[in-house]
This record gives sequence, structure tokens and C-alpha cells, in this order.
Amino acid sequence: MTGQPILVEVVRNEFVESVHRGCLVVTAPDGSVQFSAGDVTSPFFPRSANKPLQGVGMLRAGLGYDGAELALGCASHSGETGHVERVAAMLSGAGLDPAALACPPELPIGEDARRAADEPRKITMNCSGKHAAMLATCVANGWETDGYQEPDHPLQVQLAKTVEELTGESIAAVGVDGCSAPLFAFSPTGLARSFGRLVQAEPGTDERRVADAMRAHPWLVAGSGREDTRLMRAVPGLLSKSGAEGVLAFALGDGTACAIKIADGNKRALAPLAMAVLARLGIETPEGLSDLAHPPVLGGGQPQGELRVSWSVP
Amino acid sequence: MTGQPILVEVVRNEFVESVHRGCLVVTAPDGSVQFSAGDVTSPFFPRSANKPLQGVGMLRAGLGYDGAELALGCASHSGETGHVERVAAMLSGAGLDPAALACPPELPIGEDARRAADEPRKITMNCSGKHAAMLATCVANGWETDGYQEPDHPLQVQLAKTVEELTGESIAAVGVDGCSAPLFAFSPTGLARSFGRLVQAEPGTDERRVADAMRAHPWLVAGSGREDTRLMRAVPGLLSKSGAEGVLAFALGDGTACAIKIADGNKRALAPLAMAVLARLGIETPEGLSDLAHPPVLGGGQPQGELRVSWSVP
Repeated sequence: MTGQPILVEVVRNEFVESVHRGCLVVTAPDGSVQFSAGDVTSPFFPRSANKPLQGVGMLRAGLGYDGAELALGCASHSGETGHVERVAAMLSGAGLDPAALACPPELPIGEDARRAADEPRKITMNCSGKHAAMLATCVANGWETDGYQEPDHPLQVQLAKTVEELTGESIAAVGVDGCSAPLFAFSPTGLARSFGRLVQAEPGTDERRVADAMRAHPWLVAGSGREDTRLMRAVPGLLSKSGAEGVLAFALGDGTACAIKIADGNKRALAPLAMAVLARLGIETPEGLSDLAHPPVLGGGQPQGELRVSWSVP
Repeated sequence: MTGQPILVEVVRNEFVESVHRGCLVVTAPDGSVQFSAGDVTSPFFPRSANKPLQGVGMLRAGLGYDGAELALGCASHSGETGHVERVAAMLSGAGLDPAALACPPELPIGEDARRAADEPRKITMNCSGKHAAMLATCVANGWETDGYQEPDHPLQVQLAKTVEELTGESIAAVGVDGCSAPLFAFSPTGLARSFGRLVQAEPGTDERRVADAMRAHPWLVAGSGREDTRLMRAVPGLLSKSGAEGVLAFALGDGTACAIKIADGNKRALAPLAMAVLARLGIETPEGLSDLAHPPVLGGGQPQGELRVSWSVP
């Protein structure tokens, strides 16, 4: 993350107030690099953009989820009522209760749900669906549920193996994600390629089940007003998953895929870059998404400028 | 903001996950540059770090505030009850009500106050104290209160003049700040020098009245748990004021002053840099502020790393 180019400028009254550096890569359906900006081969932490790959790993390990449950198992949900109730049902379906979750208690990340919440809870933490799916995978295998988030637990060993298989790379570092689960470092190019694989896999395979579940349930993957949800609803066939610290990966239905990492970790630069990449790939900004392509910079409650993509689109 | 060096790394499990570039400058009591990093002579938007300078301008224009009212007039307050009640009193003291405020309705920026608030209000907006002071200045001068936030209003003309006087620089650009007030661009070096002037001025002067009011009322300048408040409480004689988009300026009692701008606008990098600058100036991290010097990076609710200053302290 040390020598990345400026990709987005924060412009207020035609004055560049701040800038966002980062890297992005677009891979063709065959996995070759179609175009890129910055260093896209060094390892980085993809954070929650890991989740679809972890989801495939859980299916490989025998998890019986599909559809809504699988989508929520790969989600960074907003903690709205519909998310929380379904996670509770996933847990009870595995004979467990929310106390089994290893994610920390947190307020919902959705602004309205956050304001309505009384206190931080494990089940309202944005990764609770993934943790419920991890627990259900353990139950399905007869694995110990206690300590399921430890890197040497059989579940996590399987997930690491799947991540290496799907990215075509060795894991360069293992960290602890915000939710306590192992966090695998690989390259942005590997992340893009893995997303391309998910959407191109044959229907019914583990990869395609994950892609299809997420695309069929965009609200469960994120929540009301969230970028992943809005993008998947607006662009037919699109699979999109963001991660903390300025990460976004998406794939078009044809297998063209993209990964973006903002070097400073700010997610606000992701949407305009995603829209610029989509436009470069022939998908003009869908109706209703112009605020994602040109996020306004406000002063006195009125637009005074915008987040402007300064990346030289190849 | 285009060629700034990396000053802070976000380290998770010994892996550099994100980086923050920016610039910082320390000026000696005589205004000369003591040391710096990055480009500190190009103009930038100081955002709310402008407020103490605007406060001096209001006193120049005859505002009768001192103490708590003056501190709140230079504040980015958290919208806690004690802030909001005092702003209401400032307005009624000028024969006005909150409808006269030109700042937009916003929820409080303090997390607890935000959660407790029913709806966005002008008076809970973090700049409402400054706007109340601006209105009171207009009333004291018999100026039209309507349109007081326009750059050509006599009030704003006076404030621009004061900003140029205190920074020793011409204003390079005028924008519209988040609160609708004019936003003046000058250099980080000019900002640091102006803070040095405030604390070194003779007691009773407009400059010193602002510095003394803010230092006497650190909670009114920001709020519970906020960095400016904690820093001013912990370091005797310190004047500190942060601004949106990653800006911080502070001055020690002897007139040594510092300005920092994070290129990507993220405020999380400010506190560790401020603590590193203070340490370089001989002020070791005061008791109770180690979380500012070494902000933890969390995973599973536990520290997995920290924001680490990578700037080579001269």
C-alpha cells in the first residue's frame, strides 16, 4: 500500500481538498489482467470481501445452506430486523443460540438500525451471519463449536485451503478480522480472479451456489441503502462484496471481475471507482445510481463539489 | 495534497493494512519553521481549525463574548445537552432563535448525543456555536442577520481580513464549509503560525482572549471523549482545534505551534501524530492518553495492532 496512485479526488468548490490513493485490477473471464492501476500483486487484507470465498469453503465442508441463508452467511449485514431474525433462525436451526457466536457485540452498522438499537449485541454485529454459518458447518461435521474461529480449527483449515484454491495464490499472511475470524492476505488480482470463478462456475457447484445466493438476495448481503445491495439490484448478473478498510470486489455475469483497495482504507472512494470501471466495461451508470458515480461533497447541506475519479481510465 | 509522504500506518497483526499520507509543520514561537514533513506551503482547507481565527475576527468586529461563550463560538461541539443549552442562551441573548442559524440541521456528532437525538436540528449541528457568535456579531454591529454567511457580508469580509492578518498569507481560495460559512484556504504553515500568535498575544487582546477562552473550556470546544478536549485537559497551556477532512492545529503555551493535514481526510491519523509531535517537543504522553498515541486496531474486540507513526521524527 506504499506507492499507490491517486484514484479519487475530493473536490470542494473546485478546490482539491483531499485525495484517495489505491489500486484496482480488472480481470477478464479467463483470469488474465485486462487493465489495472497501482500495485495489484502484493498481498493485502481483503477483509469482508473474503466472505464469498469462505462461503464456498463452508459448502465444500458440507454446509447445507442455499439461497437466503447462504447469502446471509456471506454478508456484512446492516443489523436490520430482517437480518437479525434470520441469523437467529440459522443458529436455532443448528441447535445453538447467539451466545455461541465468537464475533464481538457491536451495534448494527446500518444507521437507522444503529439508532434503534439498545445496546451492542453479537447478533447485530455485521458478520453474525457468517459466524452462524461457520457454527452450522461445525455442527454438520460434528466438529467442536468452541474455538471455531481459531486458525487451526478444522473449519478454518478448510476455509484457508478453499481461499488458496479460488485465488490461485498462497496465503501470504493470516490476521484476525474485526469479527475474530481468520483473515487471509492475498493479492487484489487473486481476489478479482476468484470472483470471476464464482460467477462462471457451473450451476449447482459450490462456487456458483454462493454467487447465485448473493445475487438473488442483495439486501441480505448488505442492507437498505448500502452500495453492494444497490449495485447488485441495479446491474443484472453482478456479484458485489465490499470489505472494511476500503475494499470492494465485484464480477459481472460474464466473468469479468474487479478488485479495488483504497490505500487509506476509506470506503467513500469505492463507489465512484466501481461506477467508472463499470462504465469502462460498457455499463453506463444505471438510473438511480448517479449519487454513487458522483458522490456529492456538501456545504450548508448543498452540493459544493463531488468525489471525482482522477484515475486515467485505460 | 498530491505528493505527501506516508505518516501513519494501520498495522493489523504486524501486516500494514492501510496507510495515511499527509503533511505536518511545527513553527517556533517566532514563526519560523522548526521542522516539517511533506508540502506545508501549498494552500489547503483548514475547515474548523479556522474557527479560532474567525473568533478573533468576531472580537475585532465588536463581539462582546468571553469565556464559555467565546469558547463555544470557536467550537465543533458534540451536541451534548450542555452545548446545546448554551448555544440557545447565546441566541436568545442576541434576541434571536435557532431559526436564524444558517447551518444545516444535523444530528449531534457526539455518539451518545446522536443516539439520544430525535431528529437533525440546526442547533445540534457541531458549528452552531460559531453561527450563534456570528449572528451576535451582526446584532452588535447593526448588520443584517439574513445572509450573514455570504462571503460578501460585512461580517465575512472582516473575518477574511483577520484570517489574512493572523496567517500572514493571502487567502488562496474561498469555499463553502460544511456549515455554510465561508471556508478560507491558506497553507498549513500559515495555520500553525496563527495558532502561535494566539497563545503569545498579550492578555486581554482579541487573540489571547480566544486562546484563553478555549483553554479554559476544553469541553465546550469539542465534547466528552473528543481529542481536542482530552489534549487540552491533559497538556497545560495547550490550545488545540481540529477540523474535518483530517486537520489539526495546536499551540503550546510558549508559542510553538503545529498544523497537520491528512491527505485522505481521515481524522484517525491525527492523534498519534499529535502525540509524536508533542513527544518530539519534550512532552511525553500524559497519563490517560496512551490510546491517542497508540490507537488500537481491533479484531474480535481485542487489540490486534495499532495506528503506528511512520514519520521519521527529525
